[in-house]
Parts: sequence; C-alpha cells; structure tokens
Amino acid sequence: MNIVIIGAVAAGAKAAAKIKRLLPDASVKIFTRDNHVSYSSCGLPYYIAGNFADYKALLVRSPEEFRQDGIEVYLNCNVEKIVPPDNEILVCRDCLTTPIHYDKLIIATGANPFVPYIKGIKDFKNIYTVRTVEDGINIRKKMLESKHALIIGSGYIGLELLESFVRNNLKVTIIEQKERIMPAYDDDMSDLIRKKLEEINNGRFEFLTGEKVVELIGKEDNLEKVVTSSGKIINTDMMVLCAGVRPNVEIAEDAGIEIGTTGAIKVNKLMRTNIENIYACGDCAEKTHIVSGQNVWIPLGSTANKEGRCAAMNAAGVYCEFDGVLASTVTRCLKITMAMTGITEREAKIIGFTPVSVTITKNDMVGYMPEAGEITIKVVADKITGLLLGGQAVGAVGADKRINTLTSALLGHLTVAEFKNNDLTYSPPYSPTIDPLLDAAQILCTKLSNRC
Amino acid sequence: MNIVIIGAVAAGAKAAAKIKRLLPDASVKIFTRDNHVSYSSCGLPYYIAGNFADYKALLVRSPEEFRQDGIEVYLNCNVEKIVPPDNEILVCRDCLTTPIHYDKLIIATGANPFVPYIKGIKDFKNIYTVRTVEDGINIRKKMLESKHALIIGSGYIGLELLESFVRNNLKVTIIEQKERIMPAYDDDMSDLIRKKLEEINNGRFEFLTGEKVVELIGKEDNLEKVVTSSGKIINTDMMVLCAGVRPNVEIAEDAGIEIGTTGAIKVNKLMRTNIENIYACGDCAEKTHIVSGQNVWIPLGSTANKEGRCAAMNAAGVYCEFDGVLASTVTRCLKITMAMTGITEREAKIIGFTPVSVTITKNDMVGYMPEAGEITIKVVADKITGLLLGGQAVGAVGADKRINTLTSALLGHLTVAEFKNNDLTYSPPYSPTIDPLLDAAQILCTKLSNRC
Repeated sequence: MNIVIIGAVAAGAKAAAKIKRLLPDASVKIFTRDNHVSYSSCGLPYYIAGNFADYKALLVRSPEEFRQDGIEVYLNCNVEKIVPPDNEILVCRDCLTTPIHYDKLIIATGANPFVPYIKGIKDFKNIYTVRTVEDGINIRKKMLESKHALIIGSGYIGLELLESFVRNNLKVTIIEQKERIMPAYDDDMSDLIRKKLEEINNGRFEFLTGEKVVELIGKEDNLEKVVTSSGKIINTDMMVLCAGVRPNVEIAEDAGIEIGTTGAIKVNKLMRTNIENIYACGDCAEKTHIVSGQNVWIPLGSTANKEGRCAAMNAAGVYCEFDGVLASTVTRCLKITMAMTGITEREAKIIGFTPVSVTITKNDMVGYMPEAGEITIKVVADKITGLLLGGQAVGAVGADKRINTLTSALLGHLTVAEFKNNDLTYSPPYSPTIDPLLDAAQILCTKLSNRC
Repeated sequence: MNIVIIGAVAAGAKAAAKIKRLLPDASVKIFTRDNHVSYSSCGLPYYIAGNFADYKALLVRSPEEFRQDGIEVYLNCNVEKIVPPDNEILVCRDCLTTPIHYDKLIIATGANPFVPYIKGIKDFKNIYTVRTVEDGINIRKKMLESKHALIIGSGYIGLELLESFVRNNLKVTIIEQKERIMPAYDDDMSDLIRKKLEEINNGRFEFLTGEKVVELIGKEDNLEKVVTSSGKIINTDMMVLCAGVRPNVEIAEDAGIEIGTTGAIKVNKLMRTNIENIYACGDCAEKTHIVSGQNVWIPLGSTANKEGRCAAMNAAGVYCEFDGVLASTVTRCLKITMAMTGITEREAKIIGFTPVSVTITKNDMVGYMPEAGEITIKVVADKITGLLLGGQAVGAVGADKRINTLTSALLGHLTVAEFKNNDLTYSPPYSPTIDPLLDAAQILCTKLSNRC
C-alpha cells in the first residue's frame, strides 16, 4: 500500500502519523514545498512576541522523527500535477520532475496568505505574510529593530500580532478595509472589542477602519510609508499582511477534483473528494457548518488536525465520519479574550433563520473575588424552533469557557429551553452562582416564548 | 395572592425576588431562622482566607432591599409547623407563635451541617461548622489567633478551607473517614488530587484518611486535642466540621409532605411537592440526575438558584420545568483545580451501566506557552450505548472549562462518537491544537467501537 500525502503542516502531518499507526507496513510519503513539517502556524504571534525564545518550539515533529517512524518526508518539493488515471503525482525537486505512484492520496495543501494587489507589493523586503516558520523568524528579526509596524487586516491574526508588537514597544497602525475590526463578530460585539482595546490603548496603537492601503512608497526594496484610501500617509518600518488566506487548490482543480462553492476542495463526510482514492483535509478542504448545514470554508489548525486524522482512517480502510465545524474561535489581544461559536445574528438573518439574541455583561466569577473581571456574552437563537444558533463572548479570560460550553450544546442541537438550566460547575473563583451564559439563555428563553 | 417562603439563603431569596417580579401585587413574605438573608455560603472559605475584607460582600441582597421591593422579610423566625389543610404555617418569634396564611408556600429550608456524634462535641466553643455568615466570622476570628486547625472531612468545603488556613500560615490536619480525600471522585482521580496537593505541601498540612476523631480533650469550653481511631493524638487550636450536610426536612415531613428515598423533599419537574400549593427548592429538595435518571440529593448553590426561580414561576402560574442536575462541581485548593460532572465510573457500575473510561494527562494549552500547566482528564462512557456518562478533571485552571464543555454534551445525551470532533475554540494561550478533552474522547471512541 502506497500512501502519498501532499502538505505537512497540520492536516498532512497528522494524517501521516495516524496512517502509519494504522498500517505499519504501508509506505507513507509526505511531499511539501516548505522546508519545515508539522509546525504550529498559530504559534507564530507568540514566537514573534517573545513568549518563548526558540522558534524550534513551534516544530511539533521533525522530518527525522517522521523518518524514524518509517514515514518518508520530502522537503522543498513542489507537486506539479496529480494524474488520477495513472494514480500518480508529478513532483518537482531541484528542477527534476519525478512521477510518484499512490494507492491513496491525501491532499493537505493548506492555504496561502492573501496578498492584495497594490503596486510594488512584491518588491519591498519589509512586507510580510504570517504563515511559515520563516515568516515568523523574519518578522521577529525586523520587529526588534523597528519602532512602528503596519498591520493590514484586523481579524484574529492581525490582533494577535498587535499584541506581539505592542509587547515589544512598537507603535502599531492596523488598517481594516471593513467598517469594524474583528468583522467576523456581530457589529455590536466588534464595537465592544474595539472599545475594550481602546480602553487599554495608552497611545500604543490605532485602528483605521474602512480604509485600504492604495500606495506604497519606499527606497529601493525598503517600504517607508503608505498612502491610504482616505489620503492618510503613514510612515512605518514594516508592514504585515493579515488579510486572510485562500485555499491552495490549483493542482487539485487541474486534476479534475471538484471544487466547492466556497472555492475549497469538496469532500464528503469521509474526507473523500469526488475521485476515488483521493482525500482532502485541512485548510484546502471545504467543510459543513453543523448549525446551518451549509458548505463553509473556515481554515483552522484544530479542524485540520481532526480532518487529517479522519482522512487517514478512511484511507486506511477504517470508517470514520467528520460531521463538520461550528466556526469556533478564540483570540487573545493584550488582556482581552474574545471567542465565538456557531453563527452570528448577521449570518443567521442571511441564512434565513429568525434570530433573537440576548447580550449580557457580568462578572466572570463572583464579584467579591479580587480576580473578578467583566465578560460580555451574546447568545443567538432561532425564534421559530427555539434552537441555539451561536454565541460570542468578549472580556476576561474565561470568555472561551462559556463559548466551549455552547459548542457542545450546538453539537447536540439543543434548544434554549433545554440549555437554560445547564448544570455548570460553580464555585466563587470560577463563576457567579448563575453563570452569565445561563443568565443570557434564561432571558433569551423568556424572550422566545414568554415562558421560562 | 399570599406567597410565603420559608428560608432565604439561595433558593428562597431567588424565589422571592422572581415571584415579586412576576406578580407585583402579590404579598410575598419570607421567614428565616437566620439573621441574614440572601448570602453566598460558598464564599465563606474566601472570606475566611481574606480574599476580601468585609463579610458584607457575601450578602447578595439585604432585608432592606427586599423590603424596598415589597417583600416582607422576617428574620430570626422559626417556622414550627406547616398546616396544609388550613393553608397556614405557624411561626415562632420571641416565644410567640403566630399563624400565617398562604395561598402558595415555597419551602427552601436548605440543609444543616452534619455534626458527627463525639462525646462533648457541642461543649467546645472552638469547634465550628461552615454554613452561615456568623460561622464565617467566627472561624476567621479564631483562625487569626491560631497556629493549627483540624478539618473533619476532605470534600470540597474541607479542601477550600485548607486553602484558607494555609494561606494564613496555619498548619492543618485533615481527617477523612473514607480511604481517600475528595471521595466523590473516582479512586484514581482522588489519588491524583492527593498527589498534586502533596507536591505543593511543603509541610503545611497532612491528610489522615481512613480515620475518625473518637475523643475530644480540652479545658472548659476550649478544645485542645483530639484522639483519632488509630490512636493518634493531635493538638489543635480549632476544629472545623466539613463532614457534609443533611436536608432540613423536619417540618415538611411533619406536615405529610412526601420525602424521597434520598431523605430530601420529593418534587416533580415543576418543583411541586405532593401537596397542592406547596413547592420545595434548593438544598432541602430532591433532584433528578440527568445522566442516570435516578433521584439524587446534591445540595449546591447554583442548583438552588435555578430551582428557586423555577418554583417561583410555577407558584406564580407561569409554567416552568426543571429537568435535573448533572452533579457538576468545581473546587480550588491552592493551585489545583478539580472539577467533575455526570457520574463517575464507580457510580456507573453501581447503577448498571458498563462503563469504559480513558484518562489522559496533557498541557492545558500549547506546550510552548510559558503559562502552560498540566491537566488530567478522565472521560467515562457506556460501552453498550456509546453515551457519555461523565468526566473528571484535575490540574491547572482550565480543568473546569473542559468539564463545562462536557455538561452540555451530557445535557444533549451525546455519544462519544458524536462528541469526539467537537469544534472547541483553539488558540495557543487557551488549549493545545487538539484539546485534551477531545484526545480522551477520541481514544475512548476507539476503545468503545474499534472505529474512530
């Protein structure tokens, strides 16, 4: 049995390890154009910040460790083509193209940072994306000699980098083309995130929303300033693109593998593509949203791991279903935790639900505990069915605890009425007697039904 | 409409406030033998520890505040009798007994600390229980002039007090008559709790398990030493009884109100007793366990609040069901968090399930984060149905997050297979890429079915 895996960050690395455990005698080969495998891309902002000194801590497993387990790893290899009729891929290394046979192929090509078109954007050396270990090393090096950084995009990577830079005493400007920062959240919660960050700002950073960079000005390959769509000129030492990612599906598409409406590779619950013996997982694959039932593309490291495991099991002949995702995320920016799961009120309206929501602000533990901090929770449910649809929480550490409590409820398709008296753990250092999440659910229940 | 409520700590206070909001014109009267109302009994260890200075922080709502809302509060009143045929209670105050008419009666008489029979136990002034605000004030006062304290019982209140005393530089001996501390947990998890506490002990406390106090020795009303069942003599400055509580059901039982097999007042889902117009809620009422379907008695402040609300709604004519409890708890002792929900493996066997469990130890966040701490999670499921039965977690802060994630899954009666790929929030400061809870579920799933 020849198993070939393209890509080796999260999904690919996980798939390789799992399949080798299931089929110890199989030949397992990983091809990656990267020169690292199995690393924590999500950890880059913390390496950049200096939370730990050695970038090697980001490496979960080295190529040597894979090889010791009998998994062959080919670094710096570009897979040029998948040829399904021949069960082959064409791999280019050092300008030499070699065909490699597979019985089962797992595509884990991930996603590429989105680089907006601005004239000269590829010419400046101090413009960065945040994806690979090298990106992290380069950004940290440059940061240590910089006084100002410009971040394009205010999603979770943008805000995590904001923390990294501010902790290293840089001044930061974040440019967001949408009207609000963290635009994945409902407008009211985005506004709250901004308000909470501004409260602890102390002149260290500024948000420019509803703006774009339209011009880059520098000397030779060094960017020195940018011009925004409203005509502002911002001097900077470095610019980092955190404007999202796009699924890396070119070779799959070329091979006739079906691409979903989201632009990512279409897979079924077994992580199989439309072509037999070819699986896809991780950031290059489309997902099903458990709440809406819709196809979505939400690239996250935790999902990639689970999908990699599931694809590997099915490729190895062990039945495994992956039901889908809830779009759960958590982000820390300075002292603020923000987390969400399910669908927002805005999304619910677009999809065709009749969303009703309750937002409450309360201490995350009993008020007399000196560590108590404020937390704001928004819970969204459907008026017609009473089903929970999602939640968003912003504030003290522990915001994520409430959101994870909701994920299981969404997974179980619970109604607000079923959820409202959930027996959550209680003790003064951990929550108020009635958790803010349940307060929100109780009020929401009354709002939905005029009953409890 | 005359509403009478007996008891005013958590359930009674909540019921009074809720019913007045629903029926602003009703007469609402609270009778309590206590001289405080609406206080956080669970906060006593933190007041004793000195986490906050003023005991008044424990008071959620004063009698005056209740009165301002039109609720009459009668302190230091002993309700001697309930006379259902006459819709009356007999209240004794200052040796004067007065009949009080009710249309709806809510019994929230709570629980009394269990005082083991040891000769002379009522004669010593430096032996305490931990239930009322006065208890807290008296313990703190005595603690400040003591060097050693003896705690009887190693359940959550015992361990919380251990923290309080150790933080105030007392040496502490905990005597537990069972073989293990925190005996509500499975044996392996109890052992782990003890091991983790011993690791940070530094000679400050000792556990004596499988032992009882059999003799109390002192001068006049001052306890000076105790003799244990194995013959040990322990000198001490004070002794605190944390040996559990018993439901306070005497007047209910006398009135012909049905008592359940657990010894607490039997109620239906509307919190109604067998007698029309009489409701019971909080620590005096029996509960249904959502996982086992059995009647249980688990006295907790969070449950009392929810039941008080539900009883009030039904008494006011607004339909409300309380589905039951999951026996979820969280306890902090020094730096250790321990939390549990559902049923343990031991309980599952007794009930008749075929439990299978997986225990894993892992960092609670990505290992490269400097704040990462170890967490051990045990997940229990039923081999026949695949249903999740419960979980226990011990270790770093964040143990409770995993347990709360499980509560919703138990509420939704999810199988391990349905739960194992739950889309939990992930970011390096909050969890590893695959949360330890999901690791445990994935392994458990394989163990149950030889599938994923």
